[in-house]
Order: sequence, then structure tokens, then C-alpha cells
Amino acid sequence: MALGKGRLEAFSDGVIAIIITIMVLEMKVPHGDSIESLKPMVPVFISYVLSFIYVGIYWNNHHHMMQAVRSVNGAVLWANLHLLFWLSLIPFVTGWMGENHFSKWPSFCYGVVLAMNAIAYTILARILVNIHGENSVLAQAIGADWKGKVSLLIYLVAISLTCYVPIAGFALYIVVAIIWFIPDKRIERKLNHQDNEHHV
Amino acid sequence: MALGKGRLEAFSDGVIAIIITIMVLEMKVPHGDSIESLKPMVPVFISYVLSFIYVGIYWNNHHHMMQAVRSVNGAVLWANLHLLFWLSLIPFVTGWMGENHFSKWPSFCYGVVLAMNAIAYTILARILVNIHGENSVLAQAIGADWKGKVSLLIYLVAISLTCYVPIAGFALYIVVAIIWFIPDKRIERKLNHQDNEHHV
Amino acid sequence: MALGKGRLEAFSDGVIAIIITIMVLEMKVPHGDSIESLKPMVPVFISYVLSFIYVGIYWNNHHHMMQAVRSVNGAVLWANLHLLFWLSLIPFVTGWMGENHFSKWPSFCYGVVLAMNAIAYTILARILVNIHGENSVLAQAIGADWKGKVSLLIYLVAISLTCYVPIAGFALYIVVAIIWFIPDKRIERKLNHQDNEHHV
Amino acid sequence: MALGKGRLEAFSDGVIAIIITIMVLEMKVPHGDSIESLKPMVPVFISYVLSFIYVGIYWNNHHHMMQAVRSVNGAVLWANLHLLFWLSLIPFVTGWMGENHFSKWPSFCYGVVLAMNAIAYTILARILVNIHGENSVLAQAIGADWKGKVSLLIYLVAISLTCYVPIAGFALYIVVAIIWFIPDKRIERKLNHQDNEHHV
Repeated sequence: MALGKGRLEAFSDGVIAIIITIMVLEMKVPHGDSIESLKPMVPVFISYVLSFIYVGIYWNNHHHMMQAVRSVNGAVLWANLHLLFWLSLIPFVTGWMGENHFSKWPSFCYGVVLAMNAIAYTILARILVNIHGENSVLAQAIGADWKGKVSLLIYLVAISLTCYVPIAGFALYIVVAIIWFIPDKRIERKLNHQDNEHHV
Repeated sequence: MALGKGRLEAFSDGVIAIIITIMVLEMKVPHGDSIESLKPMVPVFISYVLSFIYVGIYWNNHHHMMQAVRSVNGAVLWANLHLLFWLSLIPFVTGWMGENHFSKWPSFCYGVVLAMNAIAYTILARILVNIHGENSVLAQAIGADWKGKVSLLIYLVAISLTCYVPIAGFALYIVVAIIWFIPDKRIERKLNHQDNEHHV
Repeated sequence: MALGKGRLEAFSDGVIAIIITIMVLEMKVPHGDSIESLKPMVPVFISYVLSFIYVGIYWNNHHHMMQAVRSVNGAVLWANLHLLFWLSLIPFVTGWMGENHFSKWPSFCYGVVLAMNAIAYTILARILVNIHGENSVLAQAIGADWKGKVSLLIYLVAISLTCYVPIAGFALYIVVAIIWFIPDKRIERKLNHQDNEHHV
Repeated sequence: MALGKGRLEAFSDGVIAIIITIMVLEMKVPHGDSIESLKPMVPVFISYVLSFIYVGIYWNNHHHMMQAVRSVNGAVLWANLHLLFWLSLIPFVTGWMGENHFSKWPSFCYGVVLAMNAIAYTILARILVNIHGENSVLAQAIGADWKGKVSLLIYLVAISLTCYVPIAGFALYIVVAIIWFIPDKRIERKLNHQDNEHHV
């Protein structure tokens, strides 16, 4: 497989960097100059912080996973673009949810976009494991992926909850973020192990 | 030829990453928070998806082609900027077409921009083949470029159709996207072949 | 530690490049075409220049610091994202302060964001020193970090001042920028020293 | 001098890529869907094309110059940021000039920003020559820089002209773009020459 992973990383970095930054454009400069004029921005700001952390988590995990990747092909490029597509919708649902104070449908759609991101990430990971083989560092590092499976389950519960108690659904989105906030040590550990075998 | 291709790739990645991401800014956050308030956004969303796939195709093909490139010169830099110029107009025509529900002139202009992108890509490929010679891996990989020629033909038919049955023209734009969606195996195969000769 | 610093640098470059550039989007094209129509933009422009210099300083210092870095881990990725988060708020407070002619609360918030950036940068530097050890080139280069401590002190005074004489607080923000404008020779010198030891 | 030029190139590529792309955001999607609704956009589009070519020229020349650069220091980082600052103002003056159909003051300011870019580029080139020495490939490649000097002269004439016959000034801006459009063969030639000496 002749394709290098360098440009895929560079392009993903570019897109994720733009996504994480344009969200802040949803925070329109208020017209007044009193501290009260910032008050309606509080929910927008909270949405921004949560989405910033989510996009940060994806970048972190993408970074870790690509470290263990040796080669890519056309299918990987498209699986990666598929992930970037769902990431690109985060600023939209973030703005919509923030401006409507975490009400029903915006919170519902926010959850759907998060869940689609999780699914797109899983597809990308599966395709990469197929290329590298079940015995590769990558495959061992990703392993049974219980974190991914639990997250999807929580998303399903959270999305359903938004139809009745939107704020409870929103709270569960924060729970998933916390689960992932602790960076994934698995790949790091596997890579260190491999490095030791090769270099020591 | 002393110019490295690294910065050309990095700059193109940057511009394409921005183009693919700012399109989502055309999807303005709706004012209401009901699910109905999303309804007028459906055509905008469909335009966004199609354009995302188109820009993704260009990035993919650009990535594949540059893999086979050994050196660039001033003419390549400008041919590449010419391609980036037409790509940069995609967000504009995407927004215009989406907001006007695929009516006549927006669909017409969308097709013209797509066709100009195809032409710009062909010019870039021709210049690169001239530099590398007709016997280069690049030249063999691009070959007779029937896909490019067929696409241009379909674009011409589609653009003409938009004047009478806009939605039929739009359907043909989707057809071209499907033709290209299947990643171009030619360059990948050639590169693999070359790799085998050199490394095995 | 298996994580390379390359992608962290590339991602930070991307985010900082976007932040420094989208600030200019706050300068809305005026409706008239007389020279007078530019007049209300003067304070917006001044804010832009100051923020451009601040973001430039952070990029410069980030660049210098990362030169001395040998490896990164998950904590570094998050400390870096934390810094990028506060940097991403600069365009917002810049626009708010500029449009309100450096009045009380906008100037206050501008200072808070600057101070949070300084704190985030210090945290990142501390974590990097912990990884590399107190005897590393990095640790020696950063040293006692008096410039960072003095800056924080001035920020505190400046933020307090904005409640009484906003323009005096703003003037102090310029003072800190001048202190940092002179690029940090420490790391450069240390690296040169190290290079000489190794290569001569 | 321990600083690598890699990140300076990457950061500049990022900023220039954003500048060249956000200009297209000034072309607001028109409300109607007739071909006539595009008519008021013609001057905006012409401004966009000219500015795209100008930013493309700066990226091309920056690319060529940095090829000959061996090392950078803090002064280079700031001279480069200074150039990026003036480049970042191009979208603003482009939008203002386009929306006002090349009238007096917008055309005047457009010229001032172009001239400041030329000056910033010259300063960057001077600082780089100082670091590399008068006998370096870089110094020989840049040489007497008559093109830079002639451009500045034309800018001065053009800016003065905009006060009387704005469109004549605008025509001269196009003349300078044409002068530079032909890529600078000097550095390319020098680098080829050097490559031949080293590698043949």
C-alpha cells in the first residue's frame, strides 16, 4: 500500500483545527458593554466548552490511533472524511443548542451528531484494523473497545432522555466526555512496549 | 528542479480543509427550536453533503496524484492555485443552490463551477505529466483519463439540462460524484508495482 | 513515551493560524465609501493590532518552547488544548472591546482572557518540564520564568484598573505585550549551546 | 541558530491558506435566484480574483524564498508575522473596494495595503539576507530586487491616481500583478545551479 499517512494526518489536523475554532464564531459579540449583556451568552458558552472538549477528545484519539497506523488506502481516506463530515456538524448543533438553552430538539440533534461521530470513528478504527491485521499493535491497542461501546449505549439513553428531560440528556453527554477525557492509555502503552522491544 | 512538493501539498491541504469546513457556515443556526425549524434547511443540507463529497473527491485524487509526483515548478504552483480558486467558489454556489431549492440558475452556476474544477484538475495533471515525461509512473497512472473526459461530457449535458429541468441536471451531478467516489485505483496500483520493483 | 510532537505542533499551528486570521472578520466592511466611514473602525483596528501581536507572541513562544521538547504525552495534549481554548476566546473579547471603545467590562474581560492564556501557558510549560526533568535543556531554558510571573502581576493590576480607569488597564496590556515582544532569547541560546556541544 | 524553518513555513501556509479562502466569504449568497441577482456581485468577484492572484503571488514568492533559507531567528519570525498582518488586511479592503465599485477611498486603501505588503516582504527578505550573508545563495538569488523596487514605484503612482481617476489606479494594481505573475525564476535557477554543483 503506497499511500503515506502524513497528508491524511495533516488534512485531518487542518479540518479539526478549523472546526474547533469556528465554533467560537457562533458567540456573536454582544451589542451592549455591560456585564449583563454577557448573560444571554452563558448557555452558548457552556455549549462551546463542551463541544471544544469533544472535538479535543476526537483529535486526541485520532492522534493516538494514527501513531500506531503504518499505511492507509482509499477506504481509509473515505472513512476519515466520513468522520470529518460528522465533526463538521458539531459547530451547527452547538450553536443551535446554546441559543435555545438546551431545549428538546436542539439537544436531541446534538446527541445524534455526537453518536454519528462515535459510529464514524468506530468504522475508521475497524477499517484500519482490517488493513493491519488482528495481531497488529493497532488491533491489540484498540482491543475490545468497551469504551466505544459503552459511549454509544449512553448516547442512545441520552438522546431518548432529551425528549422528556432535555437537561438530563445533556448531563449524560457530559458523562461521556468525562469517560473519554482521561486520555486513552492503551495505544500509548502498546506503542511504548513495542518501542522497548525494538530499541532496547 | 529544486522546488519540493511538501509545501504545495501542505498549502493545498490547508485551503481544501478550509473550503470543506466553511461550507457548513452557510447553514445558519435556525431561530426556532422546534424540529420544523430544521425543515427549510433540508435542501441546504443536501447541497452541503454533495459538495462535501465533491471536495473530498478532489482532495483524494489530489492526494493520490501528488504521491506519484517527484518535483514541481512555478507552472505547477499556478496550475494548483487555479484549481484551488475554482474549489474556493464551491461554498458560494453550494449555499446559493441550497437556499433556492435547486432552481434553474443556481443549479446552472453550480455545474459551471464543477466543470471548471474538472478542467483545472486536468490542466494540473497535464503540466505534471509534461514535467515527468510520458514514460513516468505518473503519466502511466493517469493514462488516457477516460473518467475525466466522461465527467466533462456529463457536466455539459447536466448544465444544459438545468435550463429546462434543473433537478435532472442536479441528478447528473450526483452521478459524476458516484463515478469518482470509487477511489482511483490506477495510481495506487502503479505505485505499488513500482514499490515492488524497487524494494523486493 | 511514544507520541511524536509533530502533530501537536501542526495542530497548534493550524488553530493559532485560524485564530489570528478570523479576528479580521470582526472588522465588518463599512457601508459608505468615504474615508469617514472608516473612523468608527479605528478602535476595532487598534484592538485587532494588539491581539494580533499577542497571538503572535504566543505562537513565537510556543515555537521556541517546542524546539526544546523531546516527547509529549496525553497530559501535554490536554494542557496544549487548554491553552488553545483560551487563545480561541481572544477574537471574541477583541471584537467586544473594540466595538465598545475600550469601556469597562469589555476591557475587564479582555484582561481576564489574557491572564488565563498566561496561566494556561505556564501550566503547559510546567508539565513539559516535569516530563523532561529539572536538568533538561527545556527546564534550564525556562528557568525561574520571571517574565511569566511579572506578566501575571501586571495583568492583575491592569484588570483591577479597568474597573476605575479602563484606558489605564488597556495601557498596561500594551506594556505586557512590549515585555514579550522582544523574543525570548533564553531557549534559543540554550539550544545553540547544546548544538555546539553536540556538533562541534 | 537552532530554530528550524519548518514551523514558520507551516504557520505561514496556514495563515495564507485562510486569508485566500475567507475572502470568498465576502461574496454573500444573493437572495434572488435569477441570473440578474448575480449582477451586483460582478465587481466583488473581480476584486476577489485580483486579490486571490495577489495572495497567490505572495505565497509563491514566499515558497521560493524559503527554499533558499537555511535558518531563522526571532527577528525573522516577527518580520514574517508582520508580512502576515498586512496580508490579513487584504480580505477587508477587497470586500470594501468590491462593494463600492472601485470608488476613490476603497481603491486608495487597497493600494496602501498592497504597498505595505510589498514593504513587509522586502523587510523579511533583507533580514534573511543579513542572516545568510551577502555571498549566500539567497542573497544572490534576490539580487538587486529591481522587481520589488519597480512595484513600489508603481504602487505610489497608482495610489496617487486613485484620488483623481480611481479606475486608473486600479488598472495599475493589475499591472503589478502581471509583473509578478510570471514566477520568479531567479531563486529557482540559483538553487538548480547549486544542486548541480553539489550533486553532479
